[in-house]
Amino acid sequence: MKRIAQLLKKAKARREEQVFVVEGIKMFREAPRERIEKIYLAESFAGKEECRKILREKGIQEPGPLTELVEDKVFKSVSDTVTPQGVLCLIRMERYTLGDMTKGEEAPFLMVLEDLQDPGNLGTILRTGEGAGVTGILMSKNSVDVFNPKVIRSTMGSVYRMPVLYTDSIEALLPQLKQLGIQTYAAHLQGKNSYDEEDYRKGTAFFIGNEGNGLTDRLTSQADCLIRIPMKGQVESLNAAMASGILMYEVLRQRK
Amino acid sequence: MKRIAQLLKKAKARREEQVFVVEGIKMFREAPRERIEKIYLAESFAGKEECRKILREKGIQEPGPLTELVEDKVFKSVSDTVTPQGVLCLIRMERYTLGDMTKGEEAPFLMVLEDLQDPGNLGTILRTGEGAGVTGILMSKNSVDVFNPKVIRSTMGSVYRMPVLYTDSIEALLPQLKQLGIQTYAAHLQGKNSYDEEDYRKGTAFFIGNEGNGLTDRLTSQADCLIRIPMKGQVESLNAAMASGILMYEVLRQRK
Repeated sequence: MKRIAQLLKKAKARREEQVFVVEGIKMFREAPRERIEKIYLAESFAGKEECRKILREKGIQEPGPLTELVEDKVFKSVSDTVTPQGVLCLIRMERYTLGDMTKGEEAPFLMVLEDLQDPGNLGTILRTGEGAGVTGILMSKNSVDVFNPKVIRSTMGSVYRMPVLYTDSIEALLPQLKQLGIQTYAAHLQGKNSYDEEDYRKGTAFFIGNEGNGLTDRLTSQADCLIRIPMKGQVESLNAAMASGILMYEVLRQRK
Repeated sequence: MKRIAQLLKKAKARREEQVFVVEGIKMFREAPRERIEKIYLAESFAGKEECRKILREKGIQEPGPLTELVEDKVFKSVSDTVTPQGVLCLIRMERYTLGDMTKGEEAPFLMVLEDLQDPGNLGTILRTGEGAGVTGILMSKNSVDVFNPKVIRSTMGSVYRMPVLYTDSIEALLPQLKQLGIQTYAAHLQGKNSYDEEDYRKGTAFFIGNEGNGLTDRLTSQADCLIRIPMKGQVESLNAAMASGILMYEVLRQRK
């Protein structure tokens, strides 16, 4: 139980063990069978038909080596949620390369996130990105951890399916993007063209900056093209996840 | 100070007094002069040039009837934020009618929110909505209060400018929308047409449902048109604010 508490709290612990924690029935149901390391079941939930059904569908025996029963009281003390549903799984991380995110894709579609900090924003970008057909997400090392419980919750399951790669240097990856024929766009208040005036039917990558400070000048200057999202009224900027969503759905709209 | 704590915590107290609380320097700077009822200044902030400058620009005297100095310790105990910036204002609410939201508008543009619950979602809809040119927001009475401190924070100032109207019955307002020539669209998973296949250059209103349950069948059936936002992968739905943002920016794109 101590181990789980550590894995919930510390990105470092997750990285070292290469596992992360998911909570709740929906995340349990959608968990890829082959990546489950352990399932912790609160006793009251283990007795329910809903639980037995999901285990049956996954071909997992209970009692068995993958499951562990936990007293309800103990479960509640470990859980990161206000009203725990009684199930918590350890999931093995998957490692992705830029090759994995672009292989077999006629028009790769990447989001490049520089120092994004808000867990809700990252989770929403994963969820919306899966919906829009994003093929992978590149992130600077200083960004929020994608396996943070708050991120996981707001992905609504997309964390299992969206390839994510953390990199020490986004810049160092840009020559590879160029080689792959991917056009890079920086979402920037100083962008000349409105985002909907560009053609995203070929390989596309958007640079999205930190919530407070926007993109660094350094990364902005490396983009093939600066685009802006027009804003009426006195709005100075959009939320980072919202800006991402608007751009991502413009890509999907053009590619239909 | 007790009064402020009540106004921060309770929608009922805000409604009764018809005032709400805003915190922080940005919200202080953007506060409309004529709607400020009181400005509470932490002593350390009151001494700063930044504070004096904003007061000067607004033509407000300190000391004077509109301002009140508060010990830093006391200020901190009242503040709703983790790191208070030392300023907090009481702002008078503005009442809007449907007429106010549509008057003089060639093509009114409304968001109709049914039982929206998440403060962050509502705040983001106000902020993005102002950016997209929304002319007003209608909300069912059971929705989250727009003057909740969390909503206000995520509006980034749009709360001052976006007309909002709470109604006992959205349905009862629909004949008025029809009379105004406003076409109503329900964002719904069962929508036949993709959202980008409709023409939003005339008066437009979108129905957005509760985060967990979506739109009620009752309101869905009253919409002129059901639209859907296409989703790839295994995504079952988008976040309510994100869905709103994608729709609102499609309107702006078409109206440019």
